Amino acid sequence: MRQAVDLKKAYRLLNHGPTVLVSSAHGERRNVMAAAWSMPLDFDPPKITVVIDKHTLTRELVDASGEFALNIPGRGLAAATVEVGSRSGRDGDKFAQLGLATFAAERIAAPLLEGCLAWLECKVIVEPDNQQRYDLFIAEVVAAWADPLDFDAGHWQQHPGRERSIHYIAGGAFFETGDAFQVGDEIPART
Amino acid sequence: MRQAVDLKKAYRLLNHGPTVLVSSAHGERRNVMAAAWSMPLDFDPPKITVVIDKHTLTRELVDASGEFALNIPGRGLAAATVEVGSRSGRDGDKFAQLGLATFAAERIAAPLLEGCLAWLECKVIVEPDNQQRYDLFIAEVVAAWADPLDFDAGHWQQHPGRERSIHYIAGGAFFETGDAFQVGDEIPART
Repeated sequence: MRQAVDLKKAYRLLNHGPTVLVSSAHGERRNVMAAAWSMPLDFDPPKITVVIDKHTLTRELVDASGEFALNIPGRGLAAATVEVGSRSGRDGDKFAQLGLATFAAERIAAPLLEGCLAWLECKVIVEPDNQQRYDLFIAEVVAAWADPLDFDAGHWQQHPGRERSIHYIAGGAFFETGDAFQVGDEIPART
Repeated sequence: MRQAVDLKKAYRLLNHGPTVLVSSAHGERRNVMAAAWSMPLDFDPPKITVVIDKHTLTRELVDASGEFALNIPGRGLAAATVEVGSRSGRDGDKFAQLGLATFAAERIAAPLLEGCLAWLECKVIVEPDNQQRYDLFIAEVVAAWADPLDFDAGHWQQHPGRERSIHYIAGGAFFETGDAFQVGDEIPART
């Protein structure tokens, strides 16, 4: 189940720093990799950054297509997150190898991963110096989706029994997203 | 209590996406702001990115000094994190207003905030286009520190009764960092 996320609220999907899966496609080829290094960059239009190593197949597909998706996995996909982070798509299709089902994005060709909590469809804003020097990509979020049981009306939900997002540490270890808590009534400025 | 963090492991302080406090100083002036938008950018030498809005006093001090620190607060500093994110340092010294104690950094002039879990001392790698167009700063981590009860030998600790890091959502709400869990024995590649 999924519904569109208001693009003005799309930054909230990444604001708490979850580890993401980057999916990409070009022509007949597609790939998925893990990325702990992504963050929101702007609210409206929403922009994000993500680090995509220049030696990866994902980089080749993103450079060729100018598009990718950030998929936000829950704990049930943690093992797959480690796996797609330790294999190369040049050695075979990781979706097929790992039995990962996908569905079509709306605005980009990259496939979206079934079973995630939320998805951000992204188009690269070409910044050659960042890409070459730092493997740093800036992209605009052109569509966003979430399972309404996990993110609804611009807010993360934490229903009992639902999976939470995950935060990569190192060596196959993650933190699960913990409980939400509230401080006062203030809405802090962006910075 | 704090000890030096091996710079090769400094990325792990940010890898799970905690919200940080950005401290800065220039001449007699100093400031601290909240930033949910930061991430690691490289391992060795360690680099990070952080978004610093061009209208903030922090931006003025960082532009003038070329330095800042990322302080990683625990839940006990969540209210202060909201407060420093909703005030401007131009209206008075936030440290004094909020009773925030500091100690001296080793490699930079910016003060470090007492009571945090970990600290990264950073020197800006000047990239004028990123800074102007996106408020995006890239910096090298030149020193890092952690309370060994929270981060030791390159790994986050989760001792009972110790505070955990926090992840800003919106509107004064945070997620606390949840429990760690392990998937297999594999060490995923960076991408």
